[in-house]
Amino acid sequence: MTLQIKLESRTIDKVERMRKVYNFSAGPAMLPEEVLLQAQAEMLDWHETGMSIMELGHRGPEFKRVAEKAEADLRELMSIPKNYQVLFLAGGATTQFSMVPLNLFDGKRSADYVDTGIWSKKAIAEASRYGRVNVVAQTQHQDRLDYIPAQDQWTMNEDAVYLHYTPNETIGGIEFQWIPQTGNVPLVADMTSMILSRPVNVNDYGIIYAGAQKNIGQAGITVVIIREDLIKEPLPKTPALYSYKLHAEHNSFYNTPPTYSWYISGLVLAWMKHKGGVQAFYQQNLRKAKTLYSLIDQYKDFYISRVHPDCRSLMNVMFHLCNETLTPHFLEEAEKIGLTNLRGHRVSGGVRASIYNAMPEDGVNMLADFMMDFARRKG
Amino acid sequence: MTLQIKLESRTIDKVERMRKVYNFSAGPAMLPEEVLLQAQAEMLDWHETGMSIMELGHRGPEFKRVAEKAEADLRELMSIPKNYQVLFLAGGATTQFSMVPLNLFDGKRSADYVDTGIWSKKAIAEASRYGRVNVVAQTQHQDRLDYIPAQDQWTMNEDAVYLHYTPNETIGGIEFQWIPQTGNVPLVADMTSMILSRPVNVNDYGIIYAGAQKNIGQAGITVVIIREDLIKEPLPKTPALYSYKLHAEHNSFYNTPPTYSWYISGLVLAWMKHKGGVQAFYQQNLRKAKTLYSLIDQYKDFYISRVHPDCRSLMNVMFHLCNETLTPHFLEEAEKIGLTNLRGHRVSGGVRASIYNAMPEDGVNMLADFMMDFARRKG
Repeated sequence: MTLQIKLESRTIDKVERMRKVYNFSAGPAMLPEEVLLQAQAEMLDWHETGMSIMELGHRGPEFKRVAEKAEADLRELMSIPKNYQVLFLAGGATTQFSMVPLNLFDGKRSADYVDTGIWSKKAIAEASRYGRVNVVAQTQHQDRLDYIPAQDQWTMNEDAVYLHYTPNETIGGIEFQWIPQTGNVPLVADMTSMILSRPVNVNDYGIIYAGAQKNIGQAGITVVIIREDLIKEPLPKTPALYSYKLHAEHNSFYNTPPTYSWYISGLVLAWMKHKGGVQAFYQQNLRKAKTLYSLIDQYKDFYISRVHPDCRSLMNVMFHLCNETLTPHFLEEAEKIGLTNLRGHRVSGGVRASIYNAMPEDGVNMLADFMMDFARRKG
Repeated sequence: MTLQIKLESRTIDKVERMRKVYNFSAGPAMLPEEVLLQAQAEMLDWHETGMSIMELGHRGPEFKRVAEKAEADLRELMSIPKNYQVLFLAGGATTQFSMVPLNLFDGKRSADYVDTGIWSKKAIAEASRYGRVNVVAQTQHQDRLDYIPAQDQWTMNEDAVYLHYTPNETIGGIEFQWIPQTGNVPLVADMTSMILSRPVNVNDYGIIYAGAQKNIGQAGITVVIIREDLIKEPLPKTPALYSYKLHAEHNSFYNTPPTYSWYISGLVLAWMKHKGGVQAFYQQNLRKAKTLYSLIDQYKDFYISRVHPDCRSLMNVMFHLCNETLTPHFLEEAEKIGLTNLRGHRVSGGVRASIYNAMPEDGVNMLADFMMDFARRKG
């Protein structure tokens, strides 16, 4: 991708000032500056068509190009094998909480679910409406730390129609550092908050799905990577648009897709390729997470992580101040210097730094400096 | 709304050149130039937050403002009474083909549907999967013209749970010029292709829904205006996100909504208010449609409309060349002078000029001039 920035220097200056705001929102989240600049430059004239990409019919040759390029880039970035279809569907991951059971349940067998937090629980609640669900493992708590039990402690069912898990939980900040082994049982993963943050072997999965608003683009579109043998007739009375089969048969063009969201996803995927691909981001993400977790551990009388070091999230660094009365001051001071949206989820409280692919290392370093300074002043 | 255009003059010059392309696409469709300019200007810094609106969390105060303003403007533009809820939902109108029956069927009574074209038929096919559907009227054909039968010829059911119709059919270019009278039976309308193009009395309807990509904004979001007494538990096993009740209880914030699409809708709605509201657009739309239909009638040996004058669409002017072998030349020549996407739908063939609110009168006049010139040269 050639990032041709066509804007005037005044605008660029402004951008440089602006990006001194580092947005740690859990999602919708920060996007790469280059992507926003390109979207801005092309807003009224996409590739000399005289039109915005959002004005172009989804069945025209222009949007087809955008759609196909986005899929090709995602396939390349994740090395997606040919026997997997890639769908770009309207809505977020919550849509998939219904679609997975509606499309995989067969009216006989049950499904296995792993419960590691709030997003797992939502997926479980929805699946339970369509068939029998077994919760085969749950986050455990020991020595004040949350951890994911090793797989030999799970109560898996060999004849499960699938096993569903959430590799990363944004609210608790807990992440699998390993891939469950499920034998012939298809593994289904809600990768919304960690897709493209680290290498995965797609062959290990039956279905991977991810809402775009963290590592792929803007809210309103979800990527589904599905092994072809899992595409079949859904349960009776499944709404038309909840059928993977229908979408697969129409290459996600059965009805009007969210074209602009798809386009933004394409810009992000091209940017990732340009920047070295998943491996490069993984290395950067390891450095970013290490910077913050090391500081938390170093100032352990002031900051506390409640997640076991073996399953700390690369993407959502969740911590508390030991003296919780200082949390509002921490958030207020951070906000003032341009470190925004650090408040933890209302369920968990505390502080959450979401550091997806688009968060520059500078932003993380600035946060670490602030945390150190704050701890020294208030500790 | 103040449209503060912050871009450099070079960019603006370019815009003026660009808008010499008039895009007659049926949807996604042309957007107002002012809206695109504002979205462009705000792309990297929405209201001095230092962030794009697409990077901001949906539960933060910034996006809440955007969401509430869009709803307030829509309520004002359409004079929506207080006993109606306004929902902004992910997906397009096809989603509503399932949601309407899933939420209104009661397991006992049947629903009435009016079939005036391809979109009606799709709605009927989907509703038939959830309950008994009676097609109470269909487009008729007489003297080579399609027309909608008068209501005294319909076979309505007094105890129907609702009556569904499609006020405007984009593919056939056929539009109701009157509102069905259904007594106590709630009237449900798919207004995707005509919402905000003419005044409607919301009180006449139980539910109005409209995909955004024609008169409201970009693809990926749908507006639902629903009378509160119709909000109830959906049929069992309805997917969570297909429940109006759930969305109404959470003000469309149950899960992450398509925030950027919502924002663009807000810009379009504010632009409409700024330009005089629905009545002003209605007058302009009447003039635009009259310009084209008059020309078709004037050159009746060359162009033919197959829709009865009583139900010609204001938004989608559908016609054929009497000598169909000339159609490819017509489309090619039009394209060359910047009149794009005039090809009729593959089902209907011919020519279709979609002239939604954002299509300037200049664009329609330019098309009329071209049509006249082409007829004189080739006729």
